[in-house]
Amino acid sequence: MIDQRRLPLREEYVTCRTYEDVAAGIREMVIRGAPAIGVAAAMGVALGVAQAAEPDLDAQFARICETLAHTRPTAVNLFWAIERMRKLYESLRGRPLGVIRARLIAEAQQIRLEDIAINKAIGRNGAALVPDGKTVLTHCNAGALATAGYGTALGVIRAAVEAGKKVDVMADETRPFLQGARLTVWELQQDRIPATLITDNMAGHFLKSGRIGCVVVGADRIAANGDVANKIGTYSVAVLAKENGVPFFVAAPISTLDLTLESGDRIPIERRPDAEVTHVFGTAVAPEGTAVENPAFDVTPNRYVTAIITERGVARAPYLESLKRMVVG
Amino acid sequence: MIDQRRLPLREEYVTCRTYEDVAAGIREMVIRGAPAIGVAAAMGVALGVAQAAEPDLDAQFARICETLAHTRPTAVNLFWAIERMRKLYESLRGRPLGVIRARLIAEAQQIRLEDIAINKAIGRNGAALVPDGKTVLTHCNAGALATAGYGTALGVIRAAVEAGKKVDVMADETRPFLQGARLTVWELQQDRIPATLITDNMAGHFLKSGRIGCVVVGADRIAANGDVANKIGTYSVAVLAKENGVPFFVAAPISTLDLTLESGDRIPIERRPDAEVTHVFGTAVAPEGTAVENPAFDVTPNRYVTAIITERGVARAPYLESLKRMVVG
Repeated sequence: MIDQRRLPLREEYVTCRTYEDVAAGIREMVIRGAPAIGVAAAMGVALGVAQAAEPDLDAQFARICETLAHTRPTAVNLFWAIERMRKLYESLRGRPLGVIRARLIAEAQQIRLEDIAINKAIGRNGAALVPDGKTVLTHCNAGALATAGYGTALGVIRAAVEAGKKVDVMADETRPFLQGARLTVWELQQDRIPATLITDNMAGHFLKSGRIGCVVVGADRIAANGDVANKIGTYSVAVLAKENGVPFFVAAPISTLDLTLESGDRIPIERRPDAEVTHVFGTAVAPEGTAVENPAFDVTPNRYVTAIITERGVARAPYLESLKRMVVG
Repeated sequence: MIDQRRLPLREEYVTCRTYEDVAAGIREMVIRGAPAIGVAAAMGVALGVAQAAEPDLDAQFARICETLAHTRPTAVNLFWAIERMRKLYESLRGRPLGVIRARLIAEAQQIRLEDIAINKAIGRNGAALVPDGKTVLTHCNAGALATAGYGTALGVIRAAVEAGKKVDVMADETRPFLQGARLTVWELQQDRIPATLITDNMAGHFLKSGRIGCVVVGADRIAANGDVANKIGTYSVAVLAKENGVPFFVAAPISTLDLTLESGDRIPIERRPDAEVTHVFGTAVAPEGTAVENPAFDVTPNRYVTAIITERGVARAPYLESLKRMVVG
């Protein structure tokens, strides 16, 4: 996997040789982005089983799943992917180890391919919502790097551009990890989609200016009522968008929905290390001994969300009904 | 003057030997903060005249003022201080050069001392507004470093602490220049006032959490209707405070009022260099060739401002009347 901590200064690849390597890659954010984490976890399960031996395969499988599940708590796609692998594993009980291994590898590859197809569908469904001739504001990176390819929020933007719309992108830098500055701008440059970088605290100013036609972001987990957990700062952008009459869209696969949670209040929010805030690329930006808060995500209440774009269509309020309908089919 | 670009990693002092040195210091943000810029400009005028010679003193004086006025456009205290020096200079026409020099030096020193006294008065007037036992959120640095001493927003916090209130501070890091991380946290550490650093995009999350009792910020220019220009990101914090029922206070000296401007739409907003956004302490955080917007300030419409705290008292809406009364009275 490409090392997303080093981009855009260095394009380096990390090779994971064990499922523990994959878990470490997810935990340390070599790979990040809810759908990408899901795909990586599925690959990690397949890799773990490929290296596991009988007897006690069940115990080893449980340990593999548990290790991968304990990497990051917020993105539900991680648990969704592990669960999908577990169900397949259980359906294969009693089959020869070689068959189990081959089927799990095929399933992980299938999850990866499905994710790309899902992103394309999200893009098709969302492209119509993007106003022509205006700027699209996005936060963090919900692009190809955050998925198996194409992206959710950036997929919507890519599809709008492919549909002939004239749009440019404004990217929040997204402190502390700088996914916007490092990843979103880099991705858009490669696609020659015009992008302008701003610091997070400038988003309100430009939402007020009339330049922004809509906001599109990804999601790490969406509760049954449409509350959205996403990268820290998303809530602020949503409030500022609503205050200025700018539509706020969330683009995410169905696997990001967690209908077991009534509301976003129940979504666990990861707290990341202090050093992400006090240091930038190893350089201190605050005095020694500075106390820090570093929640990696926040929850945007459903009333700020204009629509949720999935591979099955566009859900609107009331989300309790529209999201359930979308899942049931 | 202490070099505010180097803090908190290095405590270095820059000696200004000419008025051009002072102008460069203001332009390059060796010194920043609206009241501090005003004091520095007054000192720069005095220094320039101390080194000027007859004949053509008037022309030299005009050049000194113009050079200092062309450093930064938004903070009105700069122009206010130059204007005050100019008026004194004009009143001294025909007096011996030695007298003019001595009077201008004395005036600049007087402006410095007045600024400290003003901040103490702002603190006294604002302390009662700070809720006891809660966190105060602040943005940028409106502290001792932004003034001749004590601070405006941080002066209110210091006065609340001195009055026996139990408050702690949450400081937005304030990208791109990181005044919050580098300066506000550093100042509060020296005063042993508990401070927690967050990235700018976390402010909304904590305003929603119920932890924040009030927001206090400084100002660079306040229009007649109470619209407030302040460090970029202030508008976002104000909207998020209002959305969550948290009072939003602006602390500033009367010299920050610009009653010649009907509204904040007329306040010139400085655009700073791209490299402030694309680089942190010299390290690139974005790909080469990244397009950037870098407005240094934004305007918070008066409807988000709970009160404006000055050395003469606390102004509330409607500001057109309350601010005018404060200046005249």
